[in-house]
Amino acid sequence: MTHPLLARHRATLDGALNAVATRGYWTPYPEQASPKIYGEGANEAGKQAVAAMFGQRFDLGQPGVTGWLASDRSPYGVELGVQYAVCDPGALLTAAIAAMPAWGKLGIDGRTGVCLEILDRLNKASFEIAWAVMYTTGQGFGMAFQAGGPHAQDRGLEAVAYAWREMSFVPREAHWEKPQGKNPPLVMKKYFEVVGRGPALVVGCSTFPTWNTYPGLFAALATGNAVIVKPHPWSVLPAAISVRIAREVLRENGIDPNLVTLAVVDRPQTTQQLATDPRVASIDYTGGSTFGRWLLENCRGKQVYAELAGVNNVVIESTDNYKGMLRNLAFTLSLYSGQMCTTTKALLVPASGIDTDQGHKSFDEVAADLGAAIDKFLADPATATAVLGAIQSPETLARIEAAPRAATVVLASKKLTHPEHPNAEVHTPLLLKADAADEAAYMQERFGPISTVVAVPGGPEALAALSERIVREQGALTVGMYSTRASFIDEMTAATQRAGVALSINLTSGVFVNQSAGFSDYHGTGANPAANASYTDSAFVASRFRVIQRRHHV
Amino acid sequence: MTHPLLARHRATLDGALNAVATRGYWTPYPEQASPKIYGEGANEAGKQAVAAMFGQRFDLGQPGVTGWLASDRSPYGVELGVQYAVCDPGALLTAAIAAMPAWGKLGIDGRTGVCLEILDRLNKASFEIAWAVMYTTGQGFGMAFQAGGPHAQDRGLEAVAYAWREMSFVPREAHWEKPQGKNPPLVMKKYFEVVGRGPALVVGCSTFPTWNTYPGLFAALATGNAVIVKPHPWSVLPAAISVRIAREVLRENGIDPNLVTLAVVDRPQTTQQLATDPRVASIDYTGGSTFGRWLLENCRGKQVYAELAGVNNVVIESTDNYKGMLRNLAFTLSLYSGQMCTTTKALLVPASGIDTDQGHKSFDEVAADLGAAIDKFLADPATATAVLGAIQSPETLARIEAAPRAATVVLASKKLTHPEHPNAEVHTPLLLKADAADEAAYMQERFGPISTVVAVPGGPEALAALSERIVREQGALTVGMYSTRASFIDEMTAATQRAGVALSINLTSGVFVNQSAGFSDYHGTGANPAANASYTDSAFVASRFRVIQRRHHV
Repeated sequence: MTHPLLARHRATLDGALNAVATRGYWTPYPEQASPKIYGEGANEAGKQAVAAMFGQRFDLGQPGVTGWLASDRSPYGVELGVQYAVCDPGALLTAAIAAMPAWGKLGIDGRTGVCLEILDRLNKASFEIAWAVMYTTGQGFGMAFQAGGPHAQDRGLEAVAYAWREMSFVPREAHWEKPQGKNPPLVMKKYFEVVGRGPALVVGCSTFPTWNTYPGLFAALATGNAVIVKPHPWSVLPAAISVRIAREVLRENGIDPNLVTLAVVDRPQTTQQLATDPRVASIDYTGGSTFGRWLLENCRGKQVYAELAGVNNVVIESTDNYKGMLRNLAFTLSLYSGQMCTTTKALLVPASGIDTDQGHKSFDEVAADLGAAIDKFLADPATATAVLGAIQSPETLARIEAAPRAATVVLASKKLTHPEHPNAEVHTPLLLKADAADEAAYMQERFGPISTVVAVPGGPEALAALSERIVREQGALTVGMYSTRASFIDEMTAATQRAGVALSINLTSGVFVNQSAGFSDYHGTGANPAANASYTDSAFVASRFRVIQRRHHV
Repeated sequence: MTHPLLARHRATLDGALNAVATRGYWTPYPEQASPKIYGEGANEAGKQAVAAMFGQRFDLGQPGVTGWLASDRSPYGVELGVQYAVCDPGALLTAAIAAMPAWGKLGIDGRTGVCLEILDRLNKASFEIAWAVMYTTGQGFGMAFQAGGPHAQDRGLEAVAYAWREMSFVPREAHWEKPQGKNPPLVMKKYFEVVGRGPALVVGCSTFPTWNTYPGLFAALATGNAVIVKPHPWSVLPAAISVRIAREVLRENGIDPNLVTLAVVDRPQTTQQLATDPRVASIDYTGGSTFGRWLLENCRGKQVYAELAGVNNVVIESTDNYKGMLRNLAFTLSLYSGQMCTTTKALLVPASGIDTDQGHKSFDEVAADLGAAIDKFLADPATATAVLGAIQSPETLARIEAAPRAATVVLASKKLTHPEHPNAEVHTPLLLKADAADEAAYMQERFGPISTVVAVPGGPEALAALSERIVREQGALTVGMYSTRASFIDEMTAATQRAGVALSINLTSGVFVNQSAGFSDYHGTGANPAANASYTDSAFVASRFRVIQRRHHV
């Protein structure tokens, strides 16, 4: 008998399995924040639901409560003041371990059904989550809805589909019959149990508290593990709502809700204590390289899936659509003020300039035209604030302040006033230019709206070689290129395959190098220093469970 | 067009894919060392082929030769004197990296076809490999043929099948079309390349130089990687023959043979240097825990698949086939003088004795009867030498010498004379007994023919609890149990699932707890300290390759 929740969501699972195998466009979670899809008043209801949480205790009913903490911090200047229980890490782990056997017994179908139901509920709560994401991350609302809601759900579903596929290869039992010549055969019955490795710790980041959390959460959960979600202290609310929904679904289905808990911590040492606890079997992490590398150094013996910093780059060798290219790049550099792990940081341009459909353009012209394209794109304040959102962290503000000293300014960053949120930190992108020899100017990630146009001497080979070296040394989630020459496209294809990074070629319309589509684009490759894993592939799920067998003679 | 080698071996691949999914008995490589199967004179030809190598240079034509070394050491006292090239590790790595792009370009089908051809050639060379395995490891010939030949080939094929299945999920290209309401859809063409992570180092063990090497070798190779095989210095020859065959097949198919090389090293530091070289992407290791843990500590950032020591145990609660049980255990404890990673080390018996079909047996009776069963099984010298083989290492001889001081001797070890090899170190198993409280007597692996019957006070719960604790603390590849009570079988099932170890129940005939069948039994679970991976599951292959995509508008 199929579990009733799997039966209910079977079409969603089948759609996801087909999508990850064919990698065309597909989603069960519409990205349009439309009342026709999500219901009349859904937006207002979501907004009010979040507003009603402000200043209140967000009580998940978790064990080991030692205090209450309101750590959210809004780049829009909104006072959230939502108080979360601080729970003793040992109590969360003990509860997680206690909840795992029944979750394991539910079996592959049951666990998958419950995960699909959680995702369905998260989808229905997309507006509530969107407002929570917007307030805590500084994303514009449109992006907060799409990336924080349906697109994050897509990534969670993708992980569930991969997990289901890998687990369903393991038969529940087998008949083994080995011929013995003239003697009777040896006959055995064998049973195979898919068993989760143990409690998973999922450490979220401040800028994408759901998109970067759901893959690890659902991959670990579907494969039979308890999950402790440790959000960034400034972006707790979206994770708290997600955990609340997961716990509701678990409880309704007779599963101990402490299978999924929220770890709100008041000091970094608590996270380190959790991460190094021998009972924690796996860690998912997205965020800065310093803590990421600490995890990789100190959590040996555990599976650590880490997405760190990188220097994404775009190589501009030539183009037959100069305007389209500049418009496309201007959007990429502006979206969420470049506070994405996929934003282009270095734009590599021949020092001798490029051929375009508008004639030859010198290096300085390309840089200046890109600056002008950004300026033009953000000329309308309504567009600007919607696209840019707000700067999430004081460190990013400091980087915007300091970066002009690192190179020549092509386009200065301006502070804008947000029409609704006067305290919001809205800043336009800063565009710099530098010679390739001046590596300090571009050979590092400056997280936020700071990018550098790099003048590369030599021919196209030098462009490809520098791009490859940046990826190898600094890591990258995305590389883009513009060229009208098939041979150079081949050269960049080879270079990115060697360096292990995804390549976007001649994007001039509505797809951007910093966007990766669920079910179709692998986010990260795991093959360069920016990430040791991908969302989502077989490797992201296969090590999260183990097969324990038993056998006896028949 | 399918690659011709894949077309030739398609039925083998399909059989293996079906077998790993259904896990019934299956093999394309017959385990009978029979002239009807392997050809008249195949045995003699294999023996002579190996004898012809004695004292000669075994020239693989590898780069960076700095000298020649004859390090094989035969427990039978046979002087092999085969000289292998010592190659500069940097030269091997440079050559490995140079060979990878063309291997990658061959694609999934081509690589799989070449791997299947290599396995087919290895199968045809089973006698040659068997003699090399026997001489270097001390295994009896029957075991050397089966475990070193067809069973090892099974494990290699299993890895190829898993690799093929995981890689074949990645489509070569995709059409992505995203609706845009009333506007034309966004349309992209995407391409996905399966790319190996980088050179793999496969570190073999002295006792099973092919069985424990082929899984990592073929998993890494099939997924697009170059492989450097580093055999144990005393068991080089079986690996050298295997590498020679792989290189022959590669060369015949226009692939740079340096894709697979043999690293014969004259000092352990060279292995450490190879393992920590940043160009090495993955390491497969089987062997002692000390070097295994060194690898896990020092090779961070690499995939390390390690099989280490453990304390395999059997719980004896009751039986309805006392004789069959004793006979079965006597075989397990005798086979290859217990020099297997799966041999039972501790036998947990209630201090109050057990109920059997021959009435109640006290603890001392059980221990004595097991000793007598071993003695009886090995009474015939021909059987004894064939089953026991020879003791592979002086350290094992020292352990046999020292172990009687650790507990009470039930059955002393005797030195036997091998009829053909007078210098062979043939020793019968040593059986000890101890109280559960005397943990020093049994709570450690004493590799070789040394096992301890442990008197466990308390009820069945105490038996299950001690077994579980041994697995959790010391690791285990195998746990066995004997009981006539369904409730205790359930209790042990739960305990072994918690501890993460395979369970064999009431084995009394021709299947033994120390044997795991290719395509059916998972060897190791990766869920306890004895191994962090399994032969073979999805996790064993999925992280060995990465998907690198590129996309452009249509």
